[in-house]
Amino acid sequence: MSLDRLLDDFEAGQISRDKLKKELLRQSFIETGCAKIDQLRELRTGGPEVVYCAGKTPDQVASIFDHLNRHNGRVLGTRADHAHFEAVRAVADARFDPVSGLLSIGEPVADPAGKVVVVSAGTSDLDVAEEAAGTAEFLGSRVDRHFDCGVAGIHRLFSVMDDLNDASVIIAVAGMEGALPSVIGGLALPPILAVPTSVGYGASFQGLAALLTMMNSCAPGIGVVNIDNGFGAGYLAHKINMLAVGGRDG
Amino acid sequence: MSLDRLLDDFEAGQISRDKLKKELLRQSFIETGCAKIDQLRELRTGGPEVVYCAGKTPDQVASIFDHLNRHNGRVLGTRADHAHFEAVRAVADARFDPVSGLLSIGEPVADPAGKVVVVSAGTSDLDVAEEAAGTAEFLGSRVDRHFDCGVAGIHRLFSVMDDLNDASVIIAVAGMEGALPSVIGGLALPPILAVPTSVGYGASFQGLAALLTMMNSCAPGIGVVNIDNGFGAGYLAHKINMLAVGGRDG
Amino acid sequence: MSLDRLLDDFEAGQISRDKLKKELLRQSFIETGCAKIDQLRELRTGGPEVVYCAGKTPDQVASIFDHLNRHNGRVLGTRADHAHFEAVRAVADARFDPVSGLLSIGEPVADPAGKVVVVSAGTSDLDVAEEAAGTAEFLGSRVDRHFDCGVAGIHRLFSVMDDLNDASVIIAVAGMEGALPSVIGGLALPPILAVPTSVGYGASFQGLAALLTMMNSCAPGIGVVNIDNGFGAGYLAHKINMLAVGGRDG
Amino acid sequence: MSLDRLLDDFEAGQISRDKLKKELLRQSFIETGCAKIDQLRELRTGGPEVVYCAGKTPDQVASIFDHLNRHNGRVLGTRADHAHFEAVRAVADARFDPVSGLLSIGEPVADPAGKVVVVSAGTSDLDVAEEAAGTAEFLGSRVDRHFDCGVAGIHRLFSVMDDLNDASVIIAVAGMEGALPSVIGGLALPPILAVPTSVGYGASFQGLAALLTMMNSCAPGIGVVNIDNGFGAGYLAHKINMLAVGGRDG
Amino acid sequence: MSLDRLLDDFEAGQISRDKLKKELLRQSFIETGCAKIDQLRELRTGGPEVVYCAGKTPDQVASIFDHLNRHNGRVLGTRADHAHFEAVRAVADARFDPVSGLLSIGEPVADPAGKVVVVSAGTSDLDVAEEAAGTAEFLGSRVDRHFDCGVAGIHRLFSVMDDLNDASVIIAVAGMEGALPSVIGGLALPPILAVPTSVGYGASFQGLAALLTMMNSCAPGIGVVNIDNGFGAGYLAHKINMLAVGGRDG
Amino acid sequence: MSLDRLLDDFEAGQISRDKLKKELLRQSFIETGCAKIDQLRELRTGGPEVVYCAGKTPDQVASIFDHLNRHNGRVLGTRADHAHFEAVRAVADARFDPVSGLLSIGEPVADPAGKVVVVSAGTSDLDVAEEAAGTAEFLGSRVDRHFDCGVAGIHRLFSVMDDLNDASVIIAVAGMEGALPSVIGGLALPPILAVPTSVGYGASFQGLAALLTMMNSCAPGIGVVNIDNGFGAGYLAHKINMLAVGGRDG
Amino acid sequence: MSLDRLLDDFEAGQISRDKLKKELLRQSFIETGCAKIDQLRELRTGGPEVVYCAGKTPDQVASIFDHLNRHNGRVLGTRADHAHFEAVRAVADARFDPVSGLLSIGEPVADPAGKVVVVSAGTSDLDVAEEAAGTAEFLGSRVDRHFDCGVAGIHRLFSVMDDLNDASVIIAVAGMEGALPSVIGGLALPPILAVPTSVGYGASFQGLAALLTMMNSCAPGIGVVNIDNGFGAGYLAHKINMLAVGGRDG
Amino acid sequence: MSLDRLLDDFEAGQISRDKLKKELLRQSFIETGCAKIDQLRELRTGGPEVVYCAGKTPDQVASIFDHLNRHNGRVLGTRADHAHFEAVRAVADARFDPVSGLLSIGEPVADPAGKVVVVSAGTSDLDVAEEAAGTAEFLGSRVDRHFDCGVAGIHRLFSVMDDLNDASVIIAVAGMEGALPSVIGGLALPPILAVPTSVGYGASFQGLAALLTMMNSCAPGIGVVNIDNGFGAGYLAHKINMLAVGGRDG
Repeated sequence: MSLDRLLDDFEAGQISRDKLKKELLRQSFIETGCAKIDQLRELRTGGPEVVYCAGKTPDQVASIFDHLNRHNGRVLGTRADHAHFEAVRAVADARFDPVSGLLSIGEPVADPAGKVVVVSAGTSDLDVAEEAAGTAEFLGSRVDRHFDCGVAGIHRLFSVMDDLNDASVIIAVAGMEGALPSVIGGLALPPILAVPTSVGYGASFQGLAALLTMMNSCAPGIGVVNIDNGFGAGYLAHKINMLAVGGRDG
Repeated sequence: MSLDRLLDDFEAGQISRDKLKKELLRQSFIETGCAKIDQLRELRTGGPEVVYCAGKTPDQVASIFDHLNRHNGRVLGTRADHAHFEAVRAVADARFDPVSGLLSIGEPVADPAGKVVVVSAGTSDLDVAEEAAGTAEFLGSRVDRHFDCGVAGIHRLFSVMDDLNDASVIIAVAGMEGALPSVIGGLALPPILAVPTSVGYGASFQGLAALLTMMNSCAPGIGVVNIDNGFGAGYLAHKINMLAVGGRDG
Repeated sequence: MSLDRLLDDFEAGQISRDKLKKELLRQSFIETGCAKIDQLRELRTGGPEVVYCAGKTPDQVASIFDHLNRHNGRVLGTRADHAHFEAVRAVADARFDPVSGLLSIGEPVADPAGKVVVVSAGTSDLDVAEEAAGTAEFLGSRVDRHFDCGVAGIHRLFSVMDDLNDASVIIAVAGMEGALPSVIGGLALPPILAVPTSVGYGASFQGLAALLTMMNSCAPGIGVVNIDNGFGAGYLAHKINMLAVGGRDG
Repeated sequence: MSLDRLLDDFEAGQISRDKLKKELLRQSFIETGCAKIDQLRELRTGGPEVVYCAGKTPDQVASIFDHLNRHNGRVLGTRADHAHFEAVRAVADARFDPVSGLLSIGEPVADPAGKVVVVSAGTSDLDVAEEAAGTAEFLGSRVDRHFDCGVAGIHRLFSVMDDLNDASVIIAVAGMEGALPSVIGGLALPPILAVPTSVGYGASFQGLAALLTMMNSCAPGIGVVNIDNGFGAGYLAHKINMLAVGGRDG
Repeated sequence: MSLDRLLDDFEAGQISRDKLKKELLRQSFIETGCAKIDQLRELRTGGPEVVYCAGKTPDQVASIFDHLNRHNGRVLGTRADHAHFEAVRAVADARFDPVSGLLSIGEPVADPAGKVVVVSAGTSDLDVAEEAAGTAEFLGSRVDRHFDCGVAGIHRLFSVMDDLNDASVIIAVAGMEGALPSVIGGLALPPILAVPTSVGYGASFQGLAALLTMMNSCAPGIGVVNIDNGFGAGYLAHKINMLAVGGRDG
Repeated sequence: MSLDRLLDDFEAGQISRDKLKKELLRQSFIETGCAKIDQLRELRTGGPEVVYCAGKTPDQVASIFDHLNRHNGRVLGTRADHAHFEAVRAVADARFDPVSGLLSIGEPVADPAGKVVVVSAGTSDLDVAEEAAGTAEFLGSRVDRHFDCGVAGIHRLFSVMDDLNDASVIIAVAGMEGALPSVIGGLALPPILAVPTSVGYGASFQGLAALLTMMNSCAPGIGVVNIDNGFGAGYLAHKINMLAVGGRDG
Repeated sequence: MSLDRLLDDFEAGQISRDKLKKELLRQSFIETGCAKIDQLRELRTGGPEVVYCAGKTPDQVASIFDHLNRHNGRVLGTRADHAHFEAVRAVADARFDPVSGLLSIGEPVADPAGKVVVVSAGTSDLDVAEEAAGTAEFLGSRVDRHFDCGVAGIHRLFSVMDDLNDASVIIAVAGMEGALPSVIGGLALPPILAVPTSVGYGASFQGLAALLTMMNSCAPGIGVVNIDNGFGAGYLAHKINMLAVGGRDG
Repeated sequence: MSLDRLLDDFEAGQISRDKLKKELLRQSFIETGCAKIDQLRELRTGGPEVVYCAGKTPDQVASIFDHLNRHNGRVLGTRADHAHFEAVRAVADARFDPVSGLLSIGEPVADPAGKVVVVSAGTSDLDVAEEAAGTAEFLGSRVDRHFDCGVAGIHRLFSVMDDLNDASVIIAVAGMEGALPSVIGGLALPPILAVPTSVGYGASFQGLAALLTMMNSCAPGIGVVNIDNGFGAGYLAHKINMLAVGGRDG
């Protein structure tokens, strides 16, 4: 490695201290970058790399999966379709969930301690909710699902209240008016991640209405991710759940 | 009246049929207009005229109140302030509620049958909620108030559920994320009028967030009025309540 | 039922008062939920369940219709297409209106007392207007239709004024600039529900212009529903019409 | 003048044809500019220059008025306030209308042929309507005013229909939902200029709602100017009215 | 006609004055409407009815054209496509311009006095510009066209300046930044109608950028129509041009 | 308590099982509500109630603080000003931080395990950052602050990287373009809560630009709260930090 | 040429000085225009004309290319597709890059002095980045490319820092949150042109989020072009790079 | 310095190579940061630091100016007011321009080679234009100013065309419709930086209209900065001008 060579040369008197300092400075970004990568790789040992498949050709996706699979043994793809799946399983043993669009290599190994609960408002939010749930599971969290619990039939929400309060973190997925996280925020204790979906019509403006609702929730303790961003919510929920699982050592 | 005079002249042969027809046509808009006014006045017997005071000088408001009071005995002013009140009570026996900004001449005479229930989410929505409640009362509806029942503490809402279900129509007032009407819509049976308020900050965009939420409610049976438009909600609620009071004979 | 069993056990001394209280508390949401459902079911005796068909597969829709039909005998589906219809009529005797997209099982039984009048601005608003009219009819309201009465030819509106004033509630459907409800609001006495449609181009922004127009109407007594939400308007209009039909006993 | 001097020099052989051509080309923009100014000045003989006063100090406005008055004898200032007026009348014989904010030197000399009719929806639109009316008058058009003719009381509009149809061009001023031009467009024959005003609250968004309404009017024959831009409407209306005045001979 | 019959009956003593007055009042709206229609029909003698074809089936359009053709001999359809054309020419001798989407029965008979000049910024605005030009021509105005004169090559505009100043009214069509009307407004004297088009990408937001530009023009004397609304501009331009042609007698 | 009384009466045979069931059902919402409150109170033992002071009079705030202080001994007020402080300290021993606007009764007792790190982009974001930090501290979290670490001088961020990676959760506060959370998200491992601020001008649109930036971050693991909502971020961060603190045992 | 003829005629006494002056004035715009074109053509010697192909038929594009090729020998087309390419290469020797959509005749001849560096955030931005790079190259600039350097993995950016600081001007291309230019602006010295792309989903609003981010960058020295406008950035970058290449003599 | 100490210790055998490498890595961010600062400081030798004064107290600004003045001898403050000036000149010899809000210590030393030309549309844009001009001057560029050259009087622009084409870079400042940069882009050759201003009313939406116009310019070669961001434009223009001054050696 070049840092060693630099130090060898310095010790051998082949480069001056000035030259060494200059090189160290010049390389610092690069080294830092590498260090960062290594550090991250270590921390994620056994963890998957994540590939955003939408807008990539099946061949491109297959090639990336093949590459990551060789180094890592675990890969997660989001927003994949059947063509991506066909291309990937030609090169590796992959699984595909057409509802969430998640395409993966490697089994989820959920830590039994701590759990993420995913609640969604309607059946139309199912794909986003499953993307959130599947992402958190693949990353290693235990996940409970309670779908179709929208505020228009709030009793459905009450029936799962106990389970919600057992979670490390709740992911609440809702389109249309997006009121679900606010209502949960008034009833449940865990931190809540809200996912607006583009489900709706007219003045829902492709999820903007739900996004604004969640932003303005009068119940504190709610963090919001982008419209339809089930992956982002699942990823963040897993990070938070790991805190609960591992405490300060996580 | 000029129609009579026209017919007199026609019968007296002083104007031709052509002249009569031409006059009738020419006047039809005006007559119609007048007829319309009369018809409305009859229907509203004893009812108040409504004056939007904001942006008018105290003198202008006082003059309008004085004029309407002489013809009608009952006047309602909205968005009035203390200066308006001072000017008006110099010319008539008026009442002023500084919270709702309602300024009125004449007592409300509530019909004991049928009632409007006004629910609001937070203490900051009080002025809009009171404008709605006071308007409906002044027009002749019995009104129950349940303020500070926002979804962040949904149990407060549950405790007034019975009263909500007794209403002819519910007015639900909420700012911030504006989820209250959706939640009520999932629990209560009467028709609901939703009033978004400009209460909030940041991405509430002066009530736009609440407005969109209410528009997109997944609970059917909700009609929405303009941001902070307590008067409009109270007015419409009274109209609907009168249906309940009078049934088919109303 | 479990509440009975709890009380049996309590009376039999098999569970303590503490245990009973804890169970009652724990179950309260669920019971409430159930009670709520029962209560609603009773109130809606003979009434339909409503299914939003858009985004559901024909098989899913058919399965839901089949299920609801067995329990209820009456089902209403909105935003359905021909494929939904084909799948549903394989399992039940259904009717489909391709204009409004309403798919239903069971006959409307309109109460002769009270009526809803649906007015629309242009022929392009026909589908939304029919969704509103068909919904109110299926729920049990008598409905009059006056289509193509936009403000650009305001005389057409005048010719139906008498009928409008006979209604319990008026549904006014308009796209483009959406001025129809304002004009009706200045002429007619019944409460008005305004439905903006996405008809238009350019700065209509898919119905936003009409929505804002209706929100800002200078004529009081107008409640607005979401863009293209004919179902919501029909549903709310029926609720209001029932007040007129049944008065305080409704 | 320099063009003459150039040609003198060229005729005198003091500059070459190449030099002349180069100079002509170099000066063409400037000459054009001057020509343009002259041409415009001729066309506007006796006409006023227009000064936007808002954001200028009284001294600046007075100095500009003084300068223009010396050259022109007629000046029009818009969005002026009392301080501007005080400063200007120290240097010239000026008139000021506090409602419209118009500050002027020189009398309007209206051509008796052709007229502009200004219609406004409510008393709150008075300032914008007067800015439009006063501008057209000062430029030389005869102007009729019909204020407070909003669509919420449409009979008021009908009573002035004859006068509207006598106009060369109608200016329709309205805030809130801004439906007035649409309704007039369905009833009257002259071209219509629509002026949205910032009057309203909530979802009027400072005139945006009215602007969109006017843009989307289903009645053809409506041109829209900026929110609160009474001056622009008055200016354009005068231009159109001049066509009618001059038409006979045109 | 029923008014005559009413008067006959009244003169014959078969109906009372009260009855007559009541009938007159009741019919006033309808009569007014009819009067309005007649009045308009007279004024438009020989003029076309206009049909918005987009969203209508070929059969519907053909049926409407057939009907109007029998009464009027002249019909104009906008936003038509080839299928509309095929259906219409099966029932009448029609012409179709695929660029503008105008479909018509009857020849334009342009008045030689007065003219409309249509200027457009780019070749992509051609369809909207042609819709404006073709509409004004069909209604009876003489039209000059100057396309591809955008401000990015402003010399092209200068070369047509004389023709612009000869117009009764200028229609300026532009997408993208929509600056063309402002520049023309600084150079030309006739009234200007500005048509924003949806041509552009990114932050043009389907014509919103051009619309706002035109609304905010610092050159006075510009009226704006909806995005892509060539028809509206052509229609309004024709009305204004007729003023120039006919003066006060038009 | 009424549940006990009900059971006493039931055991005493004074009410029937039917009556008991009916009462239980009727009360379920209320009881649930109460239970909810108790449950929350237990969980928050020693924790503060939170009062949003903006828009409340000093007297109102003082009265609420006095009331909560008697029951709880710990109160937190947000968006308070000096007048609120003066009124409150007349009734209790309160502290006020004019930068964050936090007004409190009772000392923060930070758990030494786990910490929240608050990073802000610029000195203008200080108030929001301090609201976040002060809130989390008052709720019981240890908090590190690193202010003025905006991406325009990214080296400042690098110098605190170690501390960021030691946090349970990072709060990143930024106005203007709001890129800070994205950059941190590419470098740090803990979950990130992003707070857009209204700092900026022009196209920042009072924080909308920063909000959208944070919503669209290409770095996963970021939850966003409302513009300027330091309190919300501090509250949610504390909840997440408690997971880390209690994790081991959780 | 007509100017010469005019001067000939003037010298020959065939036209008067008045006539000459009038003609000069009349023609000034046209001459200016021509002069402008010539001047530009000279300055761009050997440079390409640029054709926006999207929305033009292959035949139209081929015809324009053929025409320009005969006069110029170098043509650049943007937003072309394969059909355009096929049509063009039937008439000339053209090259086409399907990624950037650039279609060209003539080889780029890059000046070895000065360079443009194009940095992009993600692989999805490739097409826009290549459009920028290819445009600058074709116009004659040397271009370095560093793609996939988004802020989520900021070390990738550090590794190319030296190359960035060697550039005359940096083009930074990014979608989603668009933070890349801000981060580069805090690290690099050359002027930066920022290109927002429409890459993203949900609250990216087709590039609006990235656009606002770049507008609000806290790092000074950043100019922004339209969403996806790689061509505009490449064109402007080349202009700036030419300054560096040619210094004051450019 | 710590790097030296580390190397001393390493040479002295007091720390191992592993320890050295670890420290180097750990410190790389910090060192990099410092290096960055040094590098920038060198490049900016004699150049000013820039302080955004708005929102800072006079004391804070004075303290920052005092500090920077001691290290640098040259400081530039933007958006300053008189109070800032008073406080600063108590500690240093400062200059203040109330129009642009620029507050500075140290004289501008303009390089005679290369120049920036600032053009503005109207007198209301003066402050922003002066901020741009003053910033570029203070940084060391020669600046020409041509104010009040808006497109409504385009001849004023033509008269300064030669000067525009002599510039290294043009700054075009405009509010309202913001068409100036487009028009200049069609006439002038240098790169253009466009500054939208918040000047205007109604649908100008505080500069949004001008911003969109500039973004969508059909003239290529225009980079846009934030609304009212004269400083940003002046800063970027200076960077570009330095390229012209120094060519490849800059």
